[in-house]
Amino acid sequence: MTELNYTMLCDFYELTMGNGYLLSGMDKKTAYFDLFFRRVPDEGGFAVACGLEPIIDYIEDLHFSEADIEFLRGKGVFSEEFLAYLKDFKFTGDVWAVPEGTVVFPNEPIITVRAPAIQAQLIETYLLLCINHQSLIATKANRIARAAQGRAVSEFGSRRAHGADAAILGARAAGIGGVLNTACTITDQLYGFPATGTMAHSWVQMFDSEYDAFAAYCKCYPDSTVLLVDTFNVLKSGIPNAIKAFDDVLKPLGKRPLGVRLDSGDITYLSKKARKMLDDAGYPDCKIIASNSLDEYIIRDMIFQGAEVDGFGVGERLITARSEPVFGGVYKLVAVEDESGNITPKIKISENVVKITNPHFKKVYRIYDRENHKAIADLLCVHDEKPDESKPLTLFDPNYTWKKKTVTDFEARELLVPIFEGGRLVYKKPAYKDIVAYAKTEVESLWDEVTRFENPHNYYVDLSQKLWNIKNDLLNADR
Amino acid sequence: MTELNYTMLCDFYELTMGNGYLLSGMDKKTAYFDLFFRRVPDEGGFAVACGLEPIIDYIEDLHFSEADIEFLRGKGVFSEEFLAYLKDFKFTGDVWAVPEGTVVFPNEPIITVRAPAIQAQLIETYLLLCINHQSLIATKANRIARAAQGRAVSEFGSRRAHGADAAILGARAAGIGGVLNTACTITDQLYGFPATGTMAHSWVQMFDSEYDAFAAYCKCYPDSTVLLVDTFNVLKSGIPNAIKAFDDVLKPLGKRPLGVRLDSGDITYLSKKARKMLDDAGYPDCKIIASNSLDEYIIRDMIFQGAEVDGFGVGERLITARSEPVFGGVYKLVAVEDESGNITPKIKISENVVKITNPHFKKVYRIYDRENHKAIADLLCVHDEKPDESKPLTLFDPNYTWKKKTVTDFEARELLVPIFEGGRLVYKKPAYKDIVAYAKTEVESLWDEVTRFENPHNYYVDLSQKLWNIKNDLLNADR
Repeated sequence: MTELNYTMLCDFYELTMGNGYLLSGMDKKTAYFDLFFRRVPDEGGFAVACGLEPIIDYIEDLHFSEADIEFLRGKGVFSEEFLAYLKDFKFTGDVWAVPEGTVVFPNEPIITVRAPAIQAQLIETYLLLCINHQSLIATKANRIARAAQGRAVSEFGSRRAHGADAAILGARAAGIGGVLNTACTITDQLYGFPATGTMAHSWVQMFDSEYDAFAAYCKCYPDSTVLLVDTFNVLKSGIPNAIKAFDDVLKPLGKRPLGVRLDSGDITYLSKKARKMLDDAGYPDCKIIASNSLDEYIIRDMIFQGAEVDGFGVGERLITARSEPVFGGVYKLVAVEDESGNITPKIKISENVVKITNPHFKKVYRIYDRENHKAIADLLCVHDEKPDESKPLTLFDPNYTWKKKTVTDFEARELLVPIFEGGRLVYKKPAYKDIVAYAKTEVESLWDEVTRFENPHNYYVDLSQKLWNIKNDLLNADR
Repeated sequence: MTELNYTMLCDFYELTMGNGYLLSGMDKKTAYFDLFFRRVPDEGGFAVACGLEPIIDYIEDLHFSEADIEFLRGKGVFSEEFLAYLKDFKFTGDVWAVPEGTVVFPNEPIITVRAPAIQAQLIETYLLLCINHQSLIATKANRIARAAQGRAVSEFGSRRAHGADAAILGARAAGIGGVLNTACTITDQLYGFPATGTMAHSWVQMFDSEYDAFAAYCKCYPDSTVLLVDTFNVLKSGIPNAIKAFDDVLKPLGKRPLGVRLDSGDITYLSKKARKMLDDAGYPDCKIIASNSLDEYIIRDMIFQGAEVDGFGVGERLITARSEPVFGGVYKLVAVEDESGNITPKIKISENVVKITNPHFKKVYRIYDRENHKAIADLLCVHDEKPDESKPLTLFDPNYTWKKKTVTDFEARELLVPIFEGGRLVYKKPAYKDIVAYAKTEVESLWDEVTRFENPHNYYVDLSQKLWNIKNDLLNADR
């Protein structure tokens, strides 16, 4: 389709503020913004960060075309000075971010941007929509993949995705979350996340009979036969016709069927009956795949009730994160640097206490137990601090400061890595398969208690004493 | 960003089936598919159809590049015959669809495709994802716009959208649903749906004080001042500082402020207090805009409780349709035509009764009362039928056939209009503003009972006697 300039995919207020910063002389200031989220969807214990790669491409491509500027002039609210500024606009700032696949927690920066105020403001919307969408899907996919307890999960949801990007990048994110493959052909082409698929009900309906349809499919795909057996009646016609087609077409060729798929009805019940029929017919190796509005809760229940299912096709409830389709990432100003390099920390206070921000230019350290390599806590520090691994480290709850814990024999890993320095890309985008592998090790670094679907242990995200003091002073300041 | 060939945005099984149709000689058959949905999200009484325009662009652009074919060859499952067929692939079929903005009901075709089997199958995913996403948002937006009872609603949700398309086309759909404007700049540029916006909390934080930030904004935008008053404390600092900035900056210029915006806290309470403060200070014309996780239910409650709000900014709960983020449109084979032009109706039966399809190549008529121009029912007919307006028409419930209603003095309007004929576009895409206006008249054609948020009257979608007989025969057939 036509190529869009995503620079224009911004909230209009980023442009009115940009114009205002220029007219007010605030464009000389350097702004620090943190991108973070406030709670994990589905009451989960952690999220899987995803969405950095398209952000990198976007920042490298930032520009306003002549047509863009002409459109903005037509809005009648921008100064000619600002429109002239947009002509040569490019990103010259610094960006730090956690690599895709990193497990992340509420109220810690996933991305920190340091840039001239107008630039830092303009990229807000695109950064948020990438991280919010893709982290949402990666996090949901990870829940679903874990619910399947080692059984294969396939992503099936393109048709219910919120547009083309949601399908393509949603499938990409699902793989990072731990799903095995996808139905989305173009995601395989673009990222190497394998696409698979066999037949729809229409294949069965297109032929004169279900048996004819099955036999034709076995002839076309003797090495990868998976038959959809619920077009008419699973137990009365679907499974018997499948067995007959296996016997008539595959057996003479010396081939074995891969599986059958159930897409409606009470799948737990049907799968047990179908298993028995397939076993009795000499096809104990024929797998049973289930689909039909599945998510982590239904998969868990099916397994609990002994469903004979070897793999799950998951559609709308993964690709839209149906149970909670919003990842509430925000992008907040945390500090302002003047032309002499003095940094002033900034805070947003709110009647809603959870909306109060962690101020200042920060670093995030993940504290690991050296003995078992499990993550203990994340520690937000002022940018010039670093935990001293040679001494015991006392962590305290930022709200209930009397709740303390001292850790020894720990390792402190810095989570945010440099992506852009002075507008120059300094990060090598990892290969897709490496992101998938990294995400797996990240989830493994968590205690089981943090990964529960319900009532997970609350992982600690603490503030250093220095940062806590700065925040407390800002909260108590008169204004 | 880079241009993608959305022909590859298909479920892999559409390609394996395509290859299978070719190898089985089924590619000579003409397939009829209906795109329809089974229930309205949020238990609503109707949906607003949206998403046709990008489908038209997609169908016109359908093709496989050399690189696409090479990628598919690498998958190792496709015949060279099929890969050669893809080289010259284009769409040569017929498409009928309801215009964007049409109100639609469960189990009636929104789109009907008649094309050679491989072509009709291949376009399934893209058609579904466009209609499902955009109808979902248009329908949700219509609910939210109606809840506001004439107050302005602005779409604010790009940052929480499921990717770029979800932001851009979601905003477009929101306008068709009845929302007044958007924050999404590029949607204005592409479609002329007006983008607006003023300031974020970061504007306030960037300055040394809230007053300085407000005064600077008033100076930059004396004709369109809207101040965000909740960065610190709405009643203690936000409103007093706003009034002082209006007095100090706007008054000497002879300008009036447009409004203030509340984005957190108990907005119903705060809006009443703020209203009084503004009135007392001589700004009764200064509007109060509310945002913060709003939807139709919260807006209705706020108005019910007497909130002094003149406009609503609606974000994540509109752009993700948070309360129910899936529009369950499906694409089902309804008939097959052989090379001699004989059409065989097809049905999909299911253990889930709601998943049973309405077979055959159909037309859909909307029956209007000539006296008040309200819609009475939709009637699905076999393609060669047309209701005779000169005679009384007896409608009957397709499940409880003894429930009957006879209408006289009616008008029958055909809902599906020709879009492609033999692969040629025969439809003139309407201007955006005309779609918006049409959608408004469509909703007005419904009885109030159908538009309720909860427990709406169940609008009738009935079958002609001829179509009912065909369906009944197929359901009773042995297989």
